Amino acid sequence: MKRKASPLVGILMGSDSDLAVMGEATRVLGEFGVPCEMTVASAHRSPELVSRYASAVEKRGIQVLIAGAGGAAHLAGVLASLTTVPVIAVPLASSPLGGFDALLASVQMPPGVPVAVTSVGAWGARNAAILAVQILATSDRSLRRKLVAHKKRMAEEIEKKSKQHSRGGAGRSRR
Amino acid sequence: MKRKASPLVGILMGSDSDLAVMGEATRVLGEFGVPCEMTVASAHRSPELVSRYASAVEKRGIQVLIAGAGGAAHLAGVLASLTTVPVIAVPLASSPLGGFDALLASVQMPPGVPVAVTSVGAWGARNAAILAVQILATSDRSLRRKLVAHKKRMAEEIEKKSKQHSRGGAGRSRR
Amino acid sequence: MKRKASPLVGILMGSDSDLAVMGEATRVLGEFGVPCEMTVASAHRSPELVSRYASAVEKRGIQVLIAGAGGAAHLAGVLASLTTVPVIAVPLASSPLGGFDALLASVQMPPGVPVAVTSVGAWGARNAAILAVQILATSDRSLRRKLVAHKKRMAEEIEKKSKQHSRGGAGRSRR
Amino acid sequence: MKRKASPLVGILMGSDSDLAVMGEATRVLGEFGVPCEMTVASAHRSPELVSRYASAVEKRGIQVLIAGAGGAAHLAGVLASLTTVPVIAVPLASSPLGGFDALLASVQMPPGVPVAVTSVGAWGARNAAILAVQILATSDRSLRRKLVAHKKRMAEEIEKKSKQHSRGGAGRSRR
Amino acid sequence: MKRKASPLVGILMGSDSDLAVMGEATRVLGEFGVPCEMTVASAHRSPELVSRYASAVEKRGIQVLIAGAGGAAHLAGVLASLTTVPVIAVPLASSPLGGFDALLASVQMPPGVPVAVTSVGAWGARNAAILAVQILATSDRSLRRKLVAHKKRMAEEIEKKSKQHSRGGAGRSRR
Amino acid sequence: MKRKASPLVGILMGSDSDLAVMGEATRVLGEFGVPCEMTVASAHRSPELVSRYASAVEKRGIQVLIAGAGGAAHLAGVLASLTTVPVIAVPLASSPLGGFDALLASVQMPPGVPVAVTSVGAWGARNAAILAVQILATSDRSLRRKLVAHKKRMAEEIEKKSKQHSRGGAGRSRR
Amino acid sequence: MKRKASPLVGILMGSDSDLAVMGEATRVLGEFGVPCEMTVASAHRSPELVSRYASAVEKRGIQVLIAGAGGAAHLAGVLASLTTVPVIAVPLASSPLGGFDALLASVQMPPGVPVAVTSVGAWGARNAAILAVQILATSDRSLRRKLVAHKKRMAEEIEKKSKQHSRGGAGRSRR
Amino acid sequence: MKRKASPLVGILMGSDSDLAVMGEATRVLGEFGVPCEMTVASAHRSPELVSRYASAVEKRGIQVLIAGAGGAAHLAGVLASLTTVPVIAVPLASSPLGGFDALLASVQMPPGVPVAVTSVGAWGARNAAILAVQILATSDRSLRRKLVAHKKRMAEEIEKKSKQHSRGGAGRSRR
Repeated sequence: MKRKASPLVGILMGSDSDLAVMGEATRVLGEFGVPCEMTVASAHRSPELVSRYASAVEKRGIQVLIAGAGGAAHLAGVLASLTTVPVIAVPLASSPLGGFDALLASVQMPPGVPVAVTSVGAWGARNAAILAVQILATSDRSLRRKLVAHKKRMAEEIEKKSKQHSRGGAGRSRR
Repeated sequence: MKRKASPLVGILMGSDSDLAVMGEATRVLGEFGVPCEMTVASAHRSPELVSRYASAVEKRGIQVLIAGAGGAAHLAGVLASLTTVPVIAVPLASSPLGGFDALLASVQMPPGVPVAVTSVGAWGARNAAILAVQILATSDRSLRRKLVAHKKRMAEEIEKKSKQHSRGGAGRSRR
Repeated sequence: MKRKASPLVGILMGSDSDLAVMGEATRVLGEFGVPCEMTVASAHRSPELVSRYASAVEKRGIQVLIAGAGGAAHLAGVLASLTTVPVIAVPLASSPLGGFDALLASVQMPPGVPVAVTSVGAWGARNAAILAVQILATSDRSLRRKLVAHKKRMAEEIEKKSKQHSRGGAGRSRR
Repeated sequence: MKRKASPLVGILMGSDSDLAVMGEATRVLGEFGVPCEMTVASAHRSPELVSRYASAVEKRGIQVLIAGAGGAAHLAGVLASLTTVPVIAVPLASSPLGGFDALLASVQMPPGVPVAVTSVGAWGARNAAILAVQILATSDRSLRRKLVAHKKRMAEEIEKKSKQHSRGGAGRSRR
Repeated sequence: MKRKASPLVGILMGSDSDLAVMGEATRVLGEFGVPCEMTVASAHRSPELVSRYASAVEKRGIQVLIAGAGGAAHLAGVLASLTTVPVIAVPLASSPLGGFDALLASVQMPPGVPVAVTSVGAWGARNAAILAVQILATSDRSLRRKLVAHKKRMAEEIEKKSKQHSRGGAGRSRR
Repeated sequence: MKRKASPLVGILMGSDSDLAVMGEATRVLGEFGVPCEMTVASAHRSPELVSRYASAVEKRGIQVLIAGAGGAAHLAGVLASLTTVPVIAVPLASSPLGGFDALLASVQMPPGVPVAVTSVGAWGARNAAILAVQILATSDRSLRRKLVAHKKRMAEEIEKKSKQHSRGGAGRSRR
Repeated sequence: MKRKASPLVGILMGSDSDLAVMGEATRVLGEFGVPCEMTVASAHRSPELVSRYASAVEKRGIQVLIAGAGGAAHLAGVLASLTTVPVIAVPLASSPLGGFDALLASVQMPPGVPVAVTSVGAWGARNAAILAVQILATSDRSLRRKLVAHKKRMAEEIEKKSKQHSRGGAGRSRR
Repeated sequence: MKRKASPLVGILMGSDSDLAVMGEATRVLGEFGVPCEMTVASAHRSPELVSRYASAVEKRGIQVLIAGAGGAAHLAGVLASLTTVPVIAVPLASSPLGGFDALLASVQMPPGVPVAVTSVGAWGARNAAILAVQILATSDRSLRRKLVAHKKRMAEEIEKKSKQHSRGGAGRSRR
């Protein structure tokens, strides 16, 4: 039986209600063959767990962290305060303020402690995973090749859709 | 028959349509064994009722007020202008502006008359109750112990969820 | 020589550039005779210091915490995650986003971990101090009396100004 | 000696720092010959004064109220909750949130208790006065005539400026 | 057969999709016995109709205008530019921007041309009608009495709800 | 068989999920008899396709471009950076931030590279098409006549609705 | 003496305090040799002037309108409701709300009456002029050539700056 | 003479007026001994330059890009669409909308093309540089050590300030 690779990316989220959205990051990392792990850990409700997790990150070989959180989204910031690996934040739209709160609480980090913020919600979960792959690819040529292929594939899919609609398009004569 | 304890926390709300959300505060106070009462009283539609309520707060032994209101949410501010007990505001997202109105109308109190604002909506209703318990616990060791236990329980629940998801996690080998 | 009283209120701020604004809280607490202490401690840049401070709060007899921070203002939230004393947040307008970031990052705490948010900037620093006094006054009759006196004095000052302007007012005859 | 007419419009403001802006309302009412009075009265710091003022409004013959306030601007709302005369609000930009707070705190009144909100700041102070004149003019033909003249004068001033700039304008030939 | 009274209040709206919301204003005016009329008239799509309507307002005896509009809500502003009767705006939340657009487009009128803005949506439709009654009541004692009665009735309804919930309230003993 | 006229307006959109909204633009151009074409082309996912499309615009005789995009909506800006034909942007509300992101990302172009921004969502798709017709009509008298007719028709439809509701209106007698 | 060409572009602004910003549009049109005229005309304070201006636009040969306005910026919308030439709006940041009001009041036009909105403030004034040139260039080859030259010049200026800074750049060796 | 190391980080900005802010990124990279280069290149005004730069990034050995831009800030997004190296965005507050525009235009990237967004303005410039170092440190142990040292130094500086203020603090006795 094949032994599981030790994770290179740790995905954390503040609540298990965020699993559906953040699962997209796991799926994308899987597509790129990057081993990862998912952890529910709230900066506010389980600060020790977060602290313990963060302090083990480097010796466990985790190279990038992804943190999804809503509201006063501090998870990414807390991780960034405790480690020196790149921390990517996915602001989640889980409060009535529509994600503006999570976005501002994630992005406006003080000088000295960066967080890399991606789009609000599912777009961001997907992009956080790709950004993690881009970071790992700075020293992994095979990942770089996969990224180039992924980029090409995206463009080709759009090209295909583009042709379909052009053909079905509405060029009517004007007189 | 057991006599009801006189309330230590008064929960007010601007409209009976807020009962569902603000009931969460009552429930949490119940869990901590803190006697409370709920009152519908609109700062704008029943100012005398609010005034009468506020003027009796201190002699009735109420120690903390919680006020939930939406829109131009003035209930907490009016109570704070009339009493010297701590007033906690829960901004409610009951207008098309999504709670931004209630948040700003609650939080931007002028110097001299503080209001303690919590999150918008149900998160805030729960947190207002815990904050009230924290305030009462400044002079009640048994409440302090309950808060410590509550904090521990929250962390343990997250730890449990965390393990489940790690186990189910997506560490795939990279090659 | 008179021995300094041990502090009942701890005032923290994320940067020493916040001293001017947060000093207002110290001044107000001084007026009410409440012993307090000021500490520069950044949630992001000195997480251990914050952690160490928070863990000692209760045994040192500190009853209320006030945290002033700008940007992705996490200081109050981190303190609230580590202690069970009431934590008051003062969102500071220190980024180009004018305080909206600090307000949302402070107020939108997840259920279970309340923070009591006051106005943005200097108004909030003053109000945080009065709110701390209101909290201590739930078990201190002399503080309650001082709060009542403070409230009366505020009203009298306004009454005085009110009369001046009425007298100087612009009642011109219409014909 | 001519006796001062009793005021038809009451102008209130939350702080004497608002006098400069709100004085514009007095000036405009003076131009229309409408007797008015200015009063400093804070909804939060002097609630009794506001209450006392409001309860006397109708018997004193005051027909319209104008309230200027910043931050969690409740003054207009409180007056509207206590009287049945039209209450006009001027949201003031006196906090770091640039007037958005005063605007939302003024305008989002619950059903049953209207407030008539004008522009933020000096524009609003001027417009509140004209709106008050428009309200009084519903039963005062001479005021109506003055409003018509004022409207005509405004248009003429713009026409004059318009001509100047057209003449100085930049019609250059294209070839 | 009873002849219909000529309208004192004109209610306009930018689109017939606004009828449901603005109908609330008609209903309230009906309760107060104030004759009114409803007109669909878009500032942008039927400017002449609006112009014609506005120019006839005063000679037709209409005393107050109410204008409901969404998006770049200009209807109230256009009416205010063409008449000297008070114009009340109801910003409607009919675009994806949730009513912020209609609110700002209605309220930020330049000095000289006031509009009286009420809450966004249905709250505002109701309040616009009451504000119109308050304006008419400045010269109509019977309307003033109805407003006083309306205010009393609102307070009594809240008082009744207040008692129900207090009785059903959650005062549990603390031990 | 009639040969299709070559398109004068190119409609692009960032994703095929935008087809429903942007189809409205095609429909309106069809009503005016302006030949157009629809293309799916993402500024971010298929930059080469966009580049290739833009570089051919002028020689293909396309006179106006319409670009619909959501989120960090760059499509219009990229087209405007590559061509000198007028580029019209339709900001789409496809993220949790409700269209504010697409609006600001479209409209705040730096000096030198204009984009013509219309309303968010379906309103904007319709208006972008009419704006394109207005642009083409600067040198096409028959289009100008169609625009005048369209404007007249819109006004007439409103007039008709206006009468219906006035007739069904609520003028009740006041006593 | 050379006769002045009749204007192809009409630039309007709501107040003469907008002349400094809107003068940039005149300057740019001058650079492209497009004859234009500047007019102060307020949608709210001089509606007749605007109406008169709009009704003469087409017969005077004006092909494009540019309207700069702040606050509840209706000038562009009013012009668009009265003419069928393309109307470009420049939202101005002249109120305490920082231009958000003018932007939303300009851009959220209802379906049927488009306005082409550019950036807030001076960027927008410049871009409005270039957009006007782009519109005129749809039927004027010499203007098209000037636009292509302008685009090239902009790129060259950036290229030049780019080289300077690269040369002065900070590539330091890492050890 | 020592030969300059080839740059690992490319810093781009939309305008040379951004040099002061973005220079902070260069300075920080210099402190960490990471060779970098600064380039002025506008996504909108010099698209070819950006394109040419982006296409050479990988073969020139540049591992991370940092892009500072204001308004409809597309620079980072355009770079991310053309390369597979991590792209960090610094939203700049250079328009009247205070940086909200640049933030939303940078962060809301569609799924597939991530950008790593940092704080608005100077905080972000500094953090972008540290984030770049963190990314390079995923495969460079000496950089990791420097990051750990930097983190420690930041904490020590705060600790020092913390002590000073505690000592100067305001613990006054309460009686």
